[in-house]
Amino acid sequence: MSQLDFSKLGGLVPAVIQDARSGEVLMVGFMNAEAWEATLKTGKATFFSRSRQKLWVKGETSGNVQVVKELLIDCDQDTVVLKVEQIGGAACHTGHRSCFHKKMINGSIRIIGEPVFDPRKVYGK
Amino acid sequence: MSQLDFSKLGGLVPAVIQDARSGEVLMVGFMNAEAWEATLKTGKATFFSRSRQKLWVKGETSGNVQVVKELLIDCDQDTVVLKVEQIGGAACHTGHRSCFHKKMINGSIRIIGEPVFDPRKVYGK
Repeated sequence: MSQLDFSKLGGLVPAVIQDARSGEVLMVGFMNAEAWEATLKTGKATFFSRSRQKLWVKGETSGNVQVVKELLIDCDQDTVVLKVEQIGGAACHTGHRSCFHKKMINGSIRIIGEPVFDPRKVYGK
Repeated sequence: MSQLDFSKLGGLVPAVIQDARSGEVLMVGFMNAEAWEATLKTGKATFFSRSRQKLWVKGETSGNVQVVKELLIDCDQDTVVLKVEQIGGAACHTGHRSCFHKKMINGSIRIIGEPVFDPRKVYGK
């Protein structure tokens, strides 16, 4: 049934989430077959949470869902790229636009950019 | 010593390789601590091959190495993005510029784009 090879990571494939307009990589998650099917069916990026061991619609708490604009699959069909419209402008639970907001500079890690939202307000903490 | 959390995937982290100029996602590989250190040291994308169970400098056979221009790390430090200059113009062993040259269109997979090189000539097959 499925178009993907889930066998290499114990039932999962990595899913790279890329901003459809800017090309910025926003995050990387994992999908099992059910998450992949849900993503295809709903048009919203859906992952399998390894920590909670269940399906996770990105944005289900914050409202910052990812509307799928384009779905790409790699040569050996064990990894996907989703080009998305990121609702709310930020993918990261820290409030940063991208989860990749740390940069290696001369062997040290520096935070780059500023948060777009205050995570305490969005997640009610 | 290492800046990364290798514990979630049995000693590996996913590494997204992005063209530094166009932003196109070229491939996704995996790095263990040794591959990460080698990448930092040499400035060339180095992976851990799961199938061959050894370090793999991308381009060691084809000459199409990936020169690292920028290194990004995600919020929980278990995934990296490398912005690279792709020597030879193509990352995929099929000769396509990107490994992500398959696209989901109405539930079917279609090949997009044309190979940049002939893999039979590059790999001597």
